[in-house]
Amino acid sequence: MDLVYLAPVCAILALLFAGYSYTSIKREGTGTELMQKIAAAIHTGAMVYLNRQYRAIGIFVIVLAVVLALGIGVLTAACFVLGAVLSATAGYIGMFTATAANVRTTNAARRGIADAFRVSFSSGSVMGMAVVGLGLLGLSIAYVVVSTFTGLSQAEILTHVTGFGLGASSIALFARVGGGIFTKAADVGADLVGKVEAGIPEDDPRNPAVIADNVGDNVGDVAGMGADLYESYVGAIISAMVLGVAVAATQFANADVMNVILLPLLIAAVGIIASIIGSFFVRTNKTESSAIHMAFNKGLVAAMVVTVAATYFLVNLLLGAEYIGVFYASVAGLVAGFTIGLITEYYTSFDRKPTLSIVKSTETGAATTIITGFAKGMESTIWPVLIVAVAIYVAYQVAGLYGIAIAAVGMLATLGISLSVDAYGPVADNAGGIAEMSHQKPEVREITDTLDSVGNTTAAIGKGFAIGSAALTALALFAAYTQAVGLTTIDVAVPNVFIGVLIGAMLPFLFCSITMMAVSKAAYSIVHEVRRQFREITGLMEGTADPDYTSCIAISTNAALREMILPGILAVAAPLVVGFVLGTEALGGLLVGSLASGFLLAVTMANAGGAWDNAKKYIEMGHLGGKGSPAHKAAVVGDTVGDPFKDTSGPSLNILLKLMSMVSLVFAPLLLVL
Amino acid sequence: MDLVYLAPVCAILALLFAGYSYTSIKREGTGTELMQKIAAAIHTGAMVYLNRQYRAIGIFVIVLAVVLALGIGVLTAACFVLGAVLSATAGYIGMFTATAANVRTTNAARRGIADAFRVSFSSGSVMGMAVVGLGLLGLSIAYVVVSTFTGLSQAEILTHVTGFGLGASSIALFARVGGGIFTKAADVGADLVGKVEAGIPEDDPRNPAVIADNVGDNVGDVAGMGADLYESYVGAIISAMVLGVAVAATQFANADVMNVILLPLLIAAVGIIASIIGSFFVRTNKTESSAIHMAFNKGLVAAMVVTVAATYFLVNLLLGAEYIGVFYASVAGLVAGFTIGLITEYYTSFDRKPTLSIVKSTETGAATTIITGFAKGMESTIWPVLIVAVAIYVAYQVAGLYGIAIAAVGMLATLGISLSVDAYGPVADNAGGIAEMSHQKPEVREITDTLDSVGNTTAAIGKGFAIGSAALTALALFAAYTQAVGLTTIDVAVPNVFIGVLIGAMLPFLFCSITMMAVSKAAYSIVHEVRRQFREITGLMEGTADPDYTSCIAISTNAALREMILPGILAVAAPLVVGFVLGTEALGGLLVGSLASGFLLAVTMANAGGAWDNAKKYIEMGHLGGKGSPAHKAAVVGDTVGDPFKDTSGPSLNILLKLMSMVSLVFAPLLLVL
Repeated sequence: MDLVYLAPVCAILALLFAGYSYTSIKREGTGTELMQKIAAAIHTGAMVYLNRQYRAIGIFVIVLAVVLALGIGVLTAACFVLGAVLSATAGYIGMFTATAANVRTTNAARRGIADAFRVSFSSGSVMGMAVVGLGLLGLSIAYVVVSTFTGLSQAEILTHVTGFGLGASSIALFARVGGGIFTKAADVGADLVGKVEAGIPEDDPRNPAVIADNVGDNVGDVAGMGADLYESYVGAIISAMVLGVAVAATQFANADVMNVILLPLLIAAVGIIASIIGSFFVRTNKTESSAIHMAFNKGLVAAMVVTVAATYFLVNLLLGAEYIGVFYASVAGLVAGFTIGLITEYYTSFDRKPTLSIVKSTETGAATTIITGFAKGMESTIWPVLIVAVAIYVAYQVAGLYGIAIAAVGMLATLGISLSVDAYGPVADNAGGIAEMSHQKPEVREITDTLDSVGNTTAAIGKGFAIGSAALTALALFAAYTQAVGLTTIDVAVPNVFIGVLIGAMLPFLFCSITMMAVSKAAYSIVHEVRRQFREITGLMEGTADPDYTSCIAISTNAALREMILPGILAVAAPLVVGFVLGTEALGGLLVGSLASGFLLAVTMANAGGAWDNAKKYIEMGHLGGKGSPAHKAAVVGDTVGDPFKDTSGPSLNILLKLMSMVSLVFAPLLLVL
Repeated sequence: MDLVYLAPVCAILALLFAGYSYTSIKREGTGTELMQKIAAAIHTGAMVYLNRQYRAIGIFVIVLAVVLALGIGVLTAACFVLGAVLSATAGYIGMFTATAANVRTTNAARRGIADAFRVSFSSGSVMGMAVVGLGLLGLSIAYVVVSTFTGLSQAEILTHVTGFGLGASSIALFARVGGGIFTKAADVGADLVGKVEAGIPEDDPRNPAVIADNVGDNVGDVAGMGADLYESYVGAIISAMVLGVAVAATQFANADVMNVILLPLLIAAVGIIASIIGSFFVRTNKTESSAIHMAFNKGLVAAMVVTVAATYFLVNLLLGAEYIGVFYASVAGLVAGFTIGLITEYYTSFDRKPTLSIVKSTETGAATTIITGFAKGMESTIWPVLIVAVAIYVAYQVAGLYGIAIAAVGMLATLGISLSVDAYGPVADNAGGIAEMSHQKPEVREITDTLDSVGNTTAAIGKGFAIGSAALTALALFAAYTQAVGLTTIDVAVPNVFIGVLIGAMLPFLFCSITMMAVSKAAYSIVHEVRRQFREITGLMEGTADPDYTSCIAISTNAALREMILPGILAVAAPLVVGFVLGTEALGGLLVGSLASGFLLAVTMANAGGAWDNAKKYIEMGHLGGKGSPAHKAAVVGDTVGDPFKDTSGPSLNILLKLMSMVSLVFAPLLLVL
């Protein structure tokens, strides 16, 4: 049992590393008065949004906590609140840091790329380490407290601890769905009026929606992405623990049952140490984007090597050489996560065939651009499906259902560093925006552009990784659910179960539809507001008067919070309704159906969106006539369609899949009673 | 056993009715010399395409027949060839008639709407009755011959007869996938150069792709649609017979096993009589489109009422009052098919909210048009899923797995008349094109426009019906497959089965991707050819020289046949590979996964495509600035994206789902051996 304390200790180390990174950012100056003014507007906007969101979340969490306390138990409700509060805290820390680091990155870029890179990556590290630190700390504390102060069996303890995961899922729902709507409403709205109608460039301070757009980058890519992966992280660990209890007696007869349960926590713990070690490798003085990529890769590979070695040691120590298959399962997950990222990069990079075929199709107009992009997005599903299939196959062969959950844990073990790399992107993006708006010298802009372009690639890889980990985590949670409700089979040849599959497969389509329409509606409101300001504020276009940035932020915020109610209710209610009406086996069918169609839609939308984005960027570099050419106009249509695809609806599916499995798992005791 | 002869007798009646309809068409004149010239070009083009296609099919059928003869048995191979030949014959008859009836409809329109309507609907009747007549005749002959001349058990007999269904599926693959590529390559290609670049109207005889476009309407909507529904029709009957044998002893202990097997054939037989009766109600003298809709509805309702009454009588007679649940199952299917059609109409009509919301989104450009259309397409999946779910639930509750297959038979029983209504559309469409190209008076054009606009609505309903019947038939075939390989469960909690589900869910995405890219590539070739002719043929734009229509037909034909090889191989190979590598249970998972994701994608694509089409038409009526306005340009982008959605990739999924189930069922004996 003493080994269990390794988890909170490593988690605290992660938080200390986050604190250290934060202070190193704060040492950097904030530049000219104009820079500070712009940065303050973004920072304030982000905090306004977060505060509004957290108030809404507060109500949601209290209501659900009461339901849980009455329906399942007070301990489950307490774990739920803890999981939610810590996820919200991680998001807050990440956003606070990112909106402090953006202007400091711009300022550092005035000296050179090495410092600018260090500042932006440190900001990413704060987010990455806060997520894994708070996730693992909270989860291990919840587990230790519940097991120490109650006389419950391990299975009962874990029923309560699962509440922690539901808390994470709840925040992820708000952060990803609401955040996704916010960011794309602002982005699409800003582009439609600014770039298309008024003909002013992106990130032009005269555009009233420009600050909302910059806030949105943080809301979507820092807070949203962080909450999504926080959910995967704790979800994977919890499902491995639940499955560990279920199978320990039969599958690991010669090992200590406690060690089977603790292993996932400890793999996560060594992953944190590995991530911290890896972070020290992420350094460069060179100015080429390839050098930055190299720096990231060195850090990621170092972290992976350390994790693999430590996991090998852990499995041998805890379970014994007899059960070394568990180690291979974790490696299968790790490799799968890495390769899915690479596939995503292949399908969305502008120097590869898929995106180049979209570029070519822009020559015949917007329609062929859409058709080709959509077709390439669909095509790109083959590899992630086969990779996940192989990972599942291997993990199950070597370590059963427990192996599948351990594969998910393995995939996410190095989240500390991989999320750091992800969260670096929006900071670099914002830094570029601030450089543009504050009229920095071309050399400075060149540096921020380089950092930003690397950020686009890491964002693509990060999205693929997020989807892959969501799918594997949802599958692990599904497996845990089957154990929790004692299902020996989920037989799709039984019509009720097949109906569950059909309804489950439909939900991601419905979810996407709702979130896309939400972006569309909110963008429409932004367009009207921007047009109004252009019309009513005299001197705005001449640069002698300031626009009212806050009104656009308010519109995006209100839309995000209003429009996420329906998908939120859908995600929570659908599994419960099917479970209570058609039974637990049909609910299993629903989870499988939604997992299958949701995974595929998410990959399609993310990759089509990423490829359209980069096809547009490629043309803007001067190909096919460059900016303003007919090809560019077609590419802009593709990019605009891709915006909600890749940043709202696609990522929201990650949450839907995990949340529905989590709800099923948490409410399993109730499903069995009724 | 004597009752079995009712099936071929009714089938022959259908063929006689088709012959009667054909002679009534031939009595009509063919109009002016110009009309005859245009019609001859379309007719010749269609026959050239069909001949080329049938040569390719011939090779495919021979190869597969040899494989079947060696792997499964000579009788199966013989049934397979019969099924394929008869489906091809039905397609040939339908196309031959449609391309004879189009010009005669135009000619009749010079006298008035009543005659024009009669001619075009008669052409539809030829197709509708040929499909059900040849389908039921062939199937019943195959069954009677195999059971009379062999001493095999009923289960063994049906194993061979299933080959007939595989023959139907093979033709459907070519007709739907190849036909879908042909029609949209010609359509998109003609529009991109003609309407967009050269600024000449649709159906302008100066456009070298215009005849290919008109040929395409027949290839896609007559031959393609017919082969698709022929496949559903025989697939539903066969699966009901197979399931009947499997469950007769346990579920229908007090009934004659032969009657359980014959019931689906006899429901189809009475459905034919009902369809013929219904056809006599389809008459009108009024000029409003509402009157034509009313005429169709009268015919369809009459046929349904007769079918329901006769089925009630049949079930009582054959199985006895004890098993009246089987009757309710057939009604559940019939109602489901009807309501899915209505939902499709709601989502695609330009006077309803979904399409009007797309119209509104055209104001902010092509990107929002695409986003809204796609979102509405996804949203539209809710109802078909729930309708099918209810039908499955009811059918299973009242009559078990056999009930699900009977529901599919019930849905398709009135195919004779519903396909007649469908196949009327392209004739009316062509008649309008001929009227335009031969410079008819406005009154004539008005009549053909009215007939065409009704055809658009019936096409939307027909598409919804085709998807719904494909889903239910695929499910019935899947159920038959589980019986054939003796699976008691298909447990998705087993990782191999889950992997099957994932791969199965991926296949429709891949299939769509391939078929969309095929259209894109072929349209590109058409664009180049049309540009070349505009450039090289002097006097073409002035109307003093004729374009070379045949070259565009040849390009579409070659593209269709070349581009369908890969998806064809995929559809046949995927189930076999998974079945042999991962086992029969994993193959069951694959079928379920593909059914779930394929059904949803098909509905999404069909409805988004239909709604975009009608949004464009609505604007062309003069709303939002009418033709040439920015809103219209955005709507044209939506319509062009929708073309492969609704007429190539979406309908191709119907085939994929049924074909994979059919392959699994036919190769079941081999899967069990290896």
